[in-house]
Amino acid sequence: MVRAAVRAFRRAHPEVGDEVCVALSGGADSLALTAAAVTEFSAVTALVVDHGLQAGSDEVARDACRAAERLGALSRGLVVVVDPDGSGPEAAARTARYAALDAAREGRPVLLAHTLDDQAETVLLGLGRGSGARSLRGMAAWDAPWGRPLLGVRATDTRAVCRALDLDWWEDPHNVDPAFTRVRLRREVLPLLEDVLGGGVAEGLARTAELLRVDDDELDSLATSVPVSGDGGLDVSVLEPLPTAVLTRVLRRWLLAHGCPSPTYAHLTAIAALVTDWHGQGGVAVGGTGPAEPGVAGDRGRLVARRRHGRVVLEIDRASGAGT
Amino acid sequence: MVRAAVRAFRRAHPEVGDEVCVALSGGADSLALTAAAVTEFSAVTALVVDHGLQAGSDEVARDACRAAERLGALSRGLVVVVDPDGSGPEAAARTARYAALDAAREGRPVLLAHTLDDQAETVLLGLGRGSGARSLRGMAAWDAPWGRPLLGVRATDTRAVCRALDLDWWEDPHNVDPAFTRVRLRREVLPLLEDVLGGGVAEGLARTAELLRVDDDELDSLATSVPVSGDGGLDVSVLEPLPTAVLTRVLRRWLLAHGCPSPTYAHLTAIAALVTDWHGQGGVAVGGTGPAEPGVAGDRGRLVARRRHGRVVLEIDRASGAGT
Repeated sequence: MVRAAVRAFRRAHPEVGDEVCVALSGGADSLALTAAAVTEFSAVTALVVDHGLQAGSDEVARDACRAAERLGALSRGLVVVVDPDGSGPEAAARTARYAALDAAREGRPVLLAHTLDDQAETVLLGLGRGSGARSLRGMAAWDAPWGRPLLGVRATDTRAVCRALDLDWWEDPHNVDPAFTRVRLRREVLPLLEDVLGGGVAEGLARTAELLRVDDDELDSLATSVPVSGDGGLDVSVLEPLPTAVLTRVLRRWLLAHGCPSPTYAHLTAIAALVTDWHGQGGVAVGGTGPAEPGVAGDRGRLVARRRHGRVVLEIDRASGAGT
Repeated sequence: MVRAAVRAFRRAHPEVGDEVCVALSGGADSLALTAAAVTEFSAVTALVVDHGLQAGSDEVARDACRAAERLGALSRGLVVVVDPDGSGPEAAARTARYAALDAAREGRPVLLAHTLDDQAETVLLGLGRGSGARSLRGMAAWDAPWGRPLLGVRATDTRAVCRALDLDWWEDPHNVDPAFTRVRLRREVLPLLEDVLGGGVAEGLARTAELLRVDDDELDSLATSVPVSGDGGLDVSVLEPLPTAVLTRVLRRWLLAHGCPSPTYAHLTAIAALVTDWHGQGGVAVGGTGPAEPGVAGDRGRLVARRRHGRVVLEIDRASGAGT
């Protein structure tokens, strides 16, 4: 199962090449992935990250390195320092981990052991965000240099592989700690959904992620092909004929490029109405009053999208409380 | 809130016109909708369906008619007979209800009182199906002759409106019966998701439905514009340049038009591979061995999609177990 998935991944993504790294935690998913990778690639280096966040993490890392070597991989331990950056402990550890892997991979792709179960949880995490396909498209199987060959494999299967190969895996105590949203999604929400909907939910969520990713990429690509000017705003006559799905993506890209860090559904809908339902309405405030983003000259002010003379433009209102 | 939603709905869909019907159950949602409709449209007829499935349903229907008339609407009771059609009691009642409403509407649109909460449940229902945007696009605000002005309104708001207008509403006992999947989604799954994800889930699901509907419609429209021949199969040279999101929709439409009643993700992926990853592989069985659909001459057999001479064709294999 795991080997077949790794082989199918290689076939689908020949650009991955012959030599890969595997991010190895010592858990069942990444051990099974490492075992499969050594049979399917000509050279495999296991990168073992020690976040130093749990007692005994150094020993877990050493055990993982030894397991990788027994499987026929090279191994390299990476000690990372998690920098509390205000994004929460999970996100900070993730940022540190990816940075360490990227620094250690020496030009090779890195295979990650996310399974179908992880993908299903990622989709559920997106349900509350409500940004449509962008929230629910899950993780990519291949987004260079990161490869995820196991997105179609169940966690029960990686455990079965480890048992069959007599590999002892490490159970991360975080995986059962209900302080983590993911843990509650996995242990409470998914089983309830499986019960209420009569099964097949995890597979359904993973399939949905794949389909929405394909849809979203295609619509993003259509949006990218719309010619928009760099600075003087957007020409309404170019925007007007666009279908809504493309128009909102053009607007989102434009806002991101001009210092609005997180365009919301409400922003995009209101700005789209400046194009499609124009009746002289006022501007749409799209940014807070904090320091402006790079490229807008360091002014404090709030960003407001307005329609002016047949164009949609972004302006900085400096006086707080100025009419929109 | 409810009046503003009905007014916004009218503005967004001028084709709805001046005279409407409202499907009235006597519950809080449809009573609040009726009350708002009489202030926003020049003539409103409440269509009150009595399914005859619960003791006292005739009395509930009579009360609802009287309430509609007090609000200034005309009212008409519709007694329907639910025909067990093998689709389950919920689906059979739904089919009978829509047929009765359609027969009684006399050319006018029918407003339905589905709320944001109903929309969120509809999205959750689709999570297990795993057909991407098609599963999660929820209900349409306007799909002539059916209008749903309250998809952005919470059920708590329709109750508040009824209290403010001193309207007594009927609580359908089915709404708390855990035998219904929807009831469990509303009373068990949604509260758990709200708790785990920190709130905003119902609104997020409704927003996601709206966004995915727009995306899906646009990609469907691109697929519809692809010229495909009526009978001799699909020309690979036409299919090859299509992006995956469009290709799978072209294939789905083609299968539906040629007697494959329910193309699955697996069918579409395998047939797409006949185009995009052709290495001489065999056919793809897409239908059972039951009676063939109209248009394929009543033969029993299974439908198989194959690539032949630069075309993807659909053939009927009559010998069971024939190689694909």
